[in-house]
Amino acid sequence: MAERVAGAEIERLIQLLARLPGLGPRSARRAALHLIRKREELLAPLADAMQTAREKILVCSQCGNIDTLDPCTICRDQRRDPNVLVVVETVADLWALERAGAIRARYHVLGGTLSPLDGIGPQDINLETLVARVGEGEVREVILAVNATVDGQTTAHYVTDLLSHLEVKTTRLAHGVPVGGELDYLDEGTLSTAIRQRTVF
Amino acid sequence: MAERVAGAEIERLIQLLARLPGLGPRSARRAALHLIRKREELLAPLADAMQTAREKILVCSQCGNIDTLDPCTICRDQRRDPNVLVVVETVADLWALERAGAIRARYHVLGGTLSPLDGIGPQDINLETLVARVGEGEVREVILAVNATVDGQTTAHYVTDLLSHLEVKTTRLAHGVPVGGELDYLDEGTLSTAIRQRTVF
Repeated sequence: MAERVAGAEIERLIQLLARLPGLGPRSARRAALHLIRKREELLAPLADAMQTAREKILVCSQCGNIDTLDPCTICRDQRRDPNVLVVVETVADLWALERAGAIRARYHVLGGTLSPLDGIGPQDINLETLVARVGEGEVREVILAVNATVDGQTTAHYVTDLLSHLEVKTTRLAHGVPVGGELDYLDEGTLSTAIRQRTVF
Repeated sequence: MAERVAGAEIERLIQLLARLPGLGPRSARRAALHLIRKREELLAPLADAMQTAREKILVCSQCGNIDTLDPCTICRDQRRDPNVLVVVETVADLWALERAGAIRARYHVLGGTLSPLDGIGPQDINLETLVARVGEGEVREVILAVNATVDGQTTAHYVTDLLSHLEVKTTRLAHGVPVGGELDYLDEGTLSTAIRQRTVF
């Protein structure tokens, strides 16, 4: 309906914005109006940033991270421990671990999880390159930093099997009470695990 | 933090996306990753649409609507009733009324409301052009389609005073129960008004 009112160009902008995760049709309209109001401060730089991203951003051929370099900044970083490889599902998970400053190692982005119900099998995620990387011999420990979901855990088991013939230790993230979390709001599974895997104070 | 990981270009894209209404830092990161994953289907067309918007979109010098034409499509539309002018706060409100197909008239976008507390006075919204338009003599009725907020109603009263010396009728939107609304969820003010302004069934 907005097309008749405001021109095909604005309508197209709204429709494309509505395809971003987190924006629905109504918030896409608000975002488009905001962009047009802030033409010089926001619309112009955002259009430029998108153009730059479109031209420059690459997927790292080693780890699957995204960057303007290939191999990416992390794979090039000589100060990172070459003996530890952190396996994550997505680039977002990689970023989350980096933001936390959790570990100074390299990563391997699977690009998804095994999900038989959705028809996602081993050939659909970056497993072949993982086996090849670990097979080179430098990696001593693979940390399976996958989500604590059924698909994540299925994938973790599959990766462990896949790497079992190589001389590498596979580990996984600790389960337990989130830091700052209140027991009253946690599910039974987390609480049971937290008790079972309790540590000396 | 993502800069160190993913390059200044991606970080810049995230920061700009985070300035859109409805997107916070976390959802901006998700949106950026989604854009990069869907480079050809979404990032490229969105970058182009923004570039087009930046170059082509104008603010209508008559009514304050946005369009690629000035005067805008609505102001040019000869099939609209020239005797009725609908005063709205924002372009979003204009679009909402057009989507509803509520009336085939022309609009006047104030671009805000009077808000003494925020230091927004009569000179900060498009009142001068409104008086000039109505003063031309063709408009017989001004519909004050402003929000039912304190600032909206303050503005409505001010506009009515401003136009009182001209030969024009000022009207406002009906208050009442929203169509499809449940009485149980409505505030007392709406319910009292709906009773007071009841109509014959």
